Amino acid sequence: MIQTMQQISTIAEMRVHIKEARRQGKTIGIVPTMGFLHEGHLSLVKAAREKCDLVVMSIFVNPLQFGPNEDFDRYPRDLERDRELARSAGVDLLFTPEVSEMYPKPMLTNVSVSTVTEQLCGKSRPGHFDGVATVVTKLFQIVQPDYAFFGQKDAQQVAVVTQMAFDLSMPVEIVPCPIVREADGLALSSRNVYLSAEEREQALVLSRSLKHAEKWLAEGVALDEVRGRIIQMISEMPLAQIDYVELLTYPDLSPVSARTPGQSIIVALAVRFGKTRLIDNLITTI
Amino acid sequence: MIQTMQQISTIAEMRVHIKEARRQGKTIGIVPTMGFLHEGHLSLVKAAREKCDLVVMSIFVNPLQFGPNEDFDRYPRDLERDRELARSAGVDLLFTPEVSEMYPKPMLTNVSVSTVTEQLCGKSRPGHFDGVATVVTKLFQIVQPDYAFFGQKDAQQVAVVTQMAFDLSMPVEIVPCPIVREADGLALSSRNVYLSAEEREQALVLSRSLKHAEKWLAEGVALDEVRGRIIQMISEMPLAQIDYVELLTYPDLSPVSARTPGQSIIVALAVRFGKTRLIDNLITTI
Repeated sequence: MIQTMQQISTIAEMRVHIKEARRQGKTIGIVPTMGFLHEGHLSLVKAAREKCDLVVMSIFVNPLQFGPNEDFDRYPRDLERDRELARSAGVDLLFTPEVSEMYPKPMLTNVSVSTVTEQLCGKSRPGHFDGVATVVTKLFQIVQPDYAFFGQKDAQQVAVVTQMAFDLSMPVEIVPCPIVREADGLALSSRNVYLSAEEREQALVLSRSLKHAEKWLAEGVALDEVRGRIIQMISEMPLAQIDYVELLTYPDLSPVSARTPGQSIIVALAVRFGKTRLIDNLITTI
Repeated sequence: MIQTMQQISTIAEMRVHIKEARRQGKTIGIVPTMGFLHEGHLSLVKAAREKCDLVVMSIFVNPLQFGPNEDFDRYPRDLERDRELARSAGVDLLFTPEVSEMYPKPMLTNVSVSTVTEQLCGKSRPGHFDGVATVVTKLFQIVQPDYAFFGQKDAQQVAVVTQMAFDLSMPVEIVPCPIVREADGLALSSRNVYLSAEEREQALVLSRSLKHAEKWLAEGVALDEVRGRIIQMISEMPLAQIDYVELLTYPDLSPVSARTPGQSIIVALAVRFGKTRLIDNLITTI
């Protein structure tokens, strides 16, 4: 069968498709993205394809989740390329609303999640997760998905959306999917395109330090010591400016100092290389 | 046909019923209440019954929307009586979750609406409309209604919920229903039961002053003058303590001083009689 994908840019048109899918008893999956697709996004589509009858991908660079000094304007966009990638990956409905369609009037409603947003990116990007929670809620109201697929690279985003869906009894299952990496270890991100060759080379320290951390944790090295060693490794890169290196419980994101056997933890990194802020993480059991 | 009503107290059980109703293509209406039903609530059921195949009423005294010094604990409750009234009025599913079912863990997610919550009850009851917006969002996720019915006595609540549903593209139509009054004019409220005979008698000044206001507005009396006359009328009641008397645009709830022909405005009152805070309003075009 030839894969046909429909591109939809209005909420009203999306509702018609969703209503029809619901009438037919189809299960609906959503892959929310900001576009400039890479293999990480496509792995989400693959997971959605396996679980759902109807796969919706949204491409929307959401202004609400960017701070005033962040990269909303220069965030990379290439809709034509995205469309081909989405089609090949098996997306049924590609939702590409303009900002004026999503926010036709000043947005007065805000969805916020406390506690899990207080560390990591929530701390260094104030308002970011309010923007994420609000747009994800809105997308869920429009698409009414049974499943929503998110990449674990944005582990805190997964924690926030999972908490929100639980708290508000949203009729959707949040499905986290593993980080996809380049052959040399760099976690895929639309922002990687910003990196110079030299920055990209040095950015490999992120995945390398996480690989080491995994080994150290398995060997029983103390958590503080693991953190110190990672900071040390990253600091050796002249272009690296550490935003944070944290070990926290997962998905609660509470501070963790002593080891509790069976505890799931996250080693989370955010590091700037030039103007580009990269994040990476490892979730493991200690 | 004998009316059969089912009482449901868990979210999981409600989901089963909703899924089945959806599968059958039924339209779903919700009447969210805090119980201690009166004719006002039953008029909402009547409106829902006319518009929807499946009528769900929720009875949930929502702790999130009560301030620390408000009447959560003493809010009147009578589930047995409510059940009979709901059944007679034609409710299909009566949703009566415990607080522990709605909030099994500390609630970390908050839905808030700005601007329209900054005046009137939003000003005198900080956090109240966050609690309302959050629980209504949660009820909408559980019941997935096509229509939701709210009484205009809580006109600001209607404005907040309508704004929220618009902003978040919720697939639900908010249906405001007219205030229901006793023969002597007192707007129906579950809190009327708190009133002593003397307080109740003096509380009639609310509806009486609104009736006068309607006439004055029609006669072209200046808005500030109308407000002054209402304050004067209410102040003549020895037991009345005014919380607010406001004339605002509706549903935006912006300040209004000069007359704009065709402008929809609300005359909104909140007045304490003893420990009981009553609200009433008039929505009209000037």
